[in-house]
Amino acid sequence: MRSAISAAEGVRGTTYPNPPVGAVILDVTGAIVGTGATQPPGGPHAEVVALQAAGELARGGTAVVTLEPCNHFGRTPPCTKALIDAGIATVHFALRDPNPAAAGGAAALQQAGIATHAGVLADEVAAGPLRAWLHKQRTGRPHVTWKYAASLDGRSAAADGTSKWITGPIARAQVHAERAKLDAIVVGTGTVLTDDPWLTARLPSGELAPHQPMRVVVGHTEIPSTARILDKAAPTLLLKTRDANEVVDALAEYTDVLLEGGPTLAGAFLEARRVDRILAYIAPVLLGDGRSALGGAGIGNIEQALRFRRESVETIGPDVLLSLVQFDRHNVGSTLDTDYSEE
Amino acid sequence: MRSAISAAEGVRGTTYPNPPVGAVILDVTGAIVGTGATQPPGGPHAEVVALQAAGELARGGTAVVTLEPCNHFGRTPPCTKALIDAGIATVHFALRDPNPAAAGGAAALQQAGIATHAGVLADEVAAGPLRAWLHKQRTGRPHVTWKYAASLDGRSAAADGTSKWITGPIARAQVHAERAKLDAIVVGTGTVLTDDPWLTARLPSGELAPHQPMRVVVGHTEIPSTARILDKAAPTLLLKTRDANEVVDALAEYTDVLLEGGPTLAGAFLEARRVDRILAYIAPVLLGDGRSALGGAGIGNIEQALRFRRESVETIGPDVLLSLVQFDRHNVGSTLDTDYSEE
Ligand SMILES: NC(=O)c1ccc[n+]([C@@H]2O[C@H](COP(=O)([O-])OP(=O)(O)OC[C@H]3O[C@@H](n4cnc5c(N)ncnc54)[C@H](OP(=O)(O)O)[C@@H]3O)[C@@H](O)[C@H]2O)c1
Ligand SMILES: NC(=O)c1ccc[n+]([C@@H]2O[C@H](COP(=O)([O-])OP(=O)(O)OC[C@H]3O[C@@H](n4cnc5c(N)ncnc54)[C@H](OP(=O)(O)O)[C@@H]3O)[C@@H](O)[C@H]2O)c1
Repeated sequence: MRSAISAAEGVRGTTYPNPPVGAVILDVTGAIVGTGATQPPGGPHAEVVALQAAGELARGGTAVVTLEPCNHFGRTPPCTKALIDAGIATVHFALRDPNPAAAGGAAALQQAGIATHAGVLADEVAAGPLRAWLHKQRTGRPHVTWKYAASLDGRSAAADGTSKWITGPIARAQVHAERAKLDAIVVGTGTVLTDDPWLTARLPSGELAPHQPMRVVVGHTEIPSTARILDKAAPTLLLKTRDANEVVDALAEYTDVLLEGGPTLAGAFLEARRVDRILAYIAPVLLGDGRSALGGAGIGNIEQALRFRRESVETIGPDVLLSLVQFDRHNVGSTLDTDYSEE
Repeated sequence: MRSAISAAEGVRGTTYPNPPVGAVILDVTGAIVGTGATQPPGGPHAEVVALQAAGELARGGTAVVTLEPCNHFGRTPPCTKALIDAGIATVHFALRDPNPAAAGGAAALQQAGIATHAGVLADEVAAGPLRAWLHKQRTGRPHVTWKYAASLDGRSAAADGTSKWITGPIARAQVHAERAKLDAIVVGTGTVLTDDPWLTARLPSGELAPHQPMRVVVGHTEIPSTARILDKAAPTLLLKTRDANEVVDALAEYTDVLLEGGPTLAGAFLEARRVDRILAYIAPVLLGDGRSALGGAGIGNIEQALRFRRESVETIGPDVLLSLVQFDRHNVGSTLDTDYSEE
């Protein structure tokens, strides 16, 4: 299943409106004979890619898939049919398909005499490649991640405004790699006017990544036509609003949206409860003065504090990356969160 | 050695001016037959306590000690003599004694035909029970830890000043347990006037712990005689200064000092470079407005940012505890810091 998750992670951001799914085929001896992931819309699903790679070796073998195989004719024939035709004996999948049109795959496989097992590494898939897609299925809204970098004392710039760099190079490279998997990146006019960012996804070579997210600028202020964000490297959407709900509505066709700040827009999204996940890169640095990473979010007292569930803690070079999610998240079990200590 | 470290940790704060040392005796078969830790000044050292517990079973056995056994007559006879007399065959110790008067223990043991091995879990001992004592030996100054609790966005109170509670009960209980091991706790007049804290170490039962740190209040403002910090539960020192260096000098006789805030005094200590370690309890909470956990520390731009070495990351219930140390720390190897991920 870990190989299937990696395969799915590799196509995240390129499969819309289909979910990024990964599949691995094992032969009768248990050896991996095929791996596949969802191809761009109109192309084959993960199971079909993996079965093609496996060829005749799939017969009598096992399919391991991150999502219940689909059972409906969309742009492609049902994956259940492909698995049955290939002579697969057993199917393991992580998550049931929450989409009623596509569901029923497990039942169809069982009717064809195939053994099915659900739930393998379900938490990892739900918090991993399928996180945003599941959120969209459940709520109808895109999944919004607020990503920010700050010092230990919560500041994103020193007293004079300088901020290059608070976090280390590994954390910054990770941000670029993530962008190539997103549908949209959102900033306020303040960030555009101050930093004049490109907000493109670049490969380590410096070239533009093949997939570019939509760049979205929120606020009433006019953006100069020379702003880098208006270049031809990727599409850009200007939203003349200050309402986070309007922004989310305008991005309804997307699945995975990243809010990249600054503090004012982040405050507006948090106040509107439109942040589903927080990725906080915290550097082992103190500034004492300077701009806070988060502006007012309408919180007057400690009772109103926005409390999140810690999902993971990672070290990224010298920095610490905290992933926090809303307490009411479905599908992700609490087993993800294990106490541990480093010393 | 882990048992010896635990034993040493258990007496931390009670052995001044001696180091808190732990010792374990193994018999010829390798079974633990005695454990000991440094007793209060005048009492026996760790090795002697452990040897007494082991009795005749020590003969031909192994001693595992966190610090090189001492070789001098102080208030007690040298531990090397006790180990030799007990017939110990092998001695493992973590750290060499940096104190010239006490050093030479390994050589004395070797001369008596005892095999000695240095360096076992040296990093853990240096960052653990002996941290403050080693710092004192090296610098002549007490070791200062700045401990604070804050939200993810670096705030220690909401907009209206309310702050109970940002961090969870486990983190708060841990702070109380730690106090009982300290020599002094330092706060500014601001914290006394705002919070009226006791700053005593209490057992989980609510009773006062047997060892109470000196309470130290820094600042020119008069403290009302009704302030809790002036009660009889522990001694209190009022330092009418605003100079962090003067505070550290006034506490020269101590080894392990905790700076418990608030933001003004923490900024003054950081600006004077008088913080040796930072313990940051970070809650998965956002406040957006409110008091910062750190006031100005004289940092004007990003080049002047105070950068620390991350020593460990732990989860404490919902909170995250970061331990940061100065980059120029001696004795602690970089092997303490391992990249890992939780998920
Ligand atoms: N640390 C980080 O991770 C990070 C990330 C991004 C940016 N930054 C820093 O953030 C700084 C810019 O800060 P910023 O706060 O001005 O940037 P911002 O949040 O990107 O933009 C602020 C603008 O957003 C608009 N806006 C949208 N909704 C709003 C609402 N509900 N209330 C008020 N305004 C709303 C307003 O534009 P109009 O006035 O045009 O309506 C406002 O001026 C830069 O220095 C940048 O480097 C840091
Ligand atoms: N989050 C946490 O972990 C934490 C911990 C402790 C306190 N707090 C909070 O901090 C708040 C109190 O803040 P605070 O900053 O007033 O407390 P503080 O730092 O404890 O005390 C400030 C006082 O320290 C004195 N001082 C010493 N050196 C100074 C210097 N170099 N420059 C200026 N003043 C110096 C001054 O007293 P004089 O004016 O008398 O000279 C100053 O008013 C309370 O609300 C408390 O709850 C939070």
